[in-house]
Amino acid sequence: MKLSARNVLKGTVKEINHGAVDSEVVIELSPGVEIVSIITKKSAEGLGLKVGGSACAIIKAPNVIIGVE
Amino acid sequence: MKLSARNVLKGTVKEINHGAVDSEVVIELSPGVEIVSIITKKSAEGLGLKVGGSACAIIKAPNVIIGVE
Amino acid sequence: MKLSARNVLKGTVKEINHGAVDSEVVIELSPGVEIVSIITKKSAEGLGLKVGGSACAIIKAPNVIIGVE
Amino acid sequence: MKLSARNVLKGTVKEINHGAVDSEVVIELSPGVEIVSIITKKSAEGLGLKVGGSACAIIKAPNVIIGVE
Amino acid sequence: MKLSARNVLKGTVKEINHGAVDSEVVIELSPGVEIVSIITKKSAEGLGLKVGGSACAIIKAPNVIIGVE
Amino acid sequence: MKLSARNVLKGTVKEINHGAVDSEVVIELSPGVEIVSIITKKSAEGLGLKVGGSACAIIKAPNVIIGVE
Repeated sequence: MKLSARNVLKGTVKEINHGAVDSEVVIELSPGVEIVSIITKKSAEGLGLKVGGSACAIIKAPNVIIGVE
Repeated sequence: MKLSARNVLKGTVKEINHGAVDSEVVIELSPGVEIVSIITKKSAEGLGLKVGGSACAIIKAPNVIIGVE
Repeated sequence: MKLSARNVLKGTVKEINHGAVDSEVVIELSPGVEIVSIITKKSAEGLGLKVGGSACAIIKAPNVIIGVE
Repeated sequence: MKLSARNVLKGTVKEINHGAVDSEVVIELSPGVEIVSIITKKSAEGLGLKVGGSACAIIKAPNVIIGVE
Repeated sequence: MKLSARNVLKGTVKEINHGAVDSEVVIELSPGVEIVSIITKKSAEGLGLKVGGSACAIIKAPNVIIGVE
Repeated sequence: MKLSARNVLKGTVKEINHGAVDSEVVIELSPGVEIVSIITKKSAEGLGLKVGGSACAIIKAPNVIIGVE
């Protein structure tokens, strides 16, 4: 499926922490560049996510805030 | 300022495209890993964003969808 | 691609209105049930969206507010 | 109250699953077309949601991603 | 209509700036406390928003980031 | 850090309720004007949030819905 979301970033699942309802998933995009997602545990299980497997982090561009130090 | 957002990703401004109201900002996180943000032109100007300058892409973890091929 | 988003609703493109930067896309999920999306014009063109074609409306569950009258 | 959100979709509460903090609410918009929302349990109780009752799913248009297979 | 969104903040419309597609609406919640919203121009017109009129700013709690200096 | 988010509202932490995974944080912007945020407990602890301390509520303008009664 092709998506309208401007950010479809390919990476590797580095870490999965399951809570009671939600799961925290860490995707490594490149060495040292990681993105954290929170999805429902039901979704994490449905996707069959496993540490070391491939996955994409998908983000709609208006959901990205820019910060400058 | 420290933020509750789980994703505060440091990078370099690679591209800025100003529309009438919104601006599209591309941040390079590492070679070949880019993230696109849409912010208001007023914000882009207020931040003084310039191609080549440093900037962070900030994303709350629940706004990240996971995809698996 | 399988997605973590809980809502992946199949439908038909009923209407596309292109603005300068953004496009408004109306997806008909069933007769009389429509959902409106705003995406960038660049995305709309990249997806090759056409009135009458198939498309999915994808929404993360925490982005849905419930209202009761 | 009238809302700026472009999607105010009327339906029937089909399922409510209460977690410790959050509740998952399934709204049936038409036969076979369902939308899942996650709200706080406190909100679900405050709204007096009941299976079989009427409810609206409210979604701002920029929160809808379009996918094409 | 009662809403699941935790933040339904009453105020007064202080400013409306119409763009080609989107409108920027500033709501004053109390003297000196303002919140800015971007909605489609179509929605702004449909709501009949006028400077000086009453309006609510509605925000789902997971969309609020916390910052500490 | 300067942010592109149009709403960076200064206030005082009025209440913190820790769940297993998430924390609910109430920020008082002015007497009687409060905003509720849900962040991960890990973030709440990382920020060192304390009742009575200063904090900002940060919201991107497209995440604010307008309602009119």
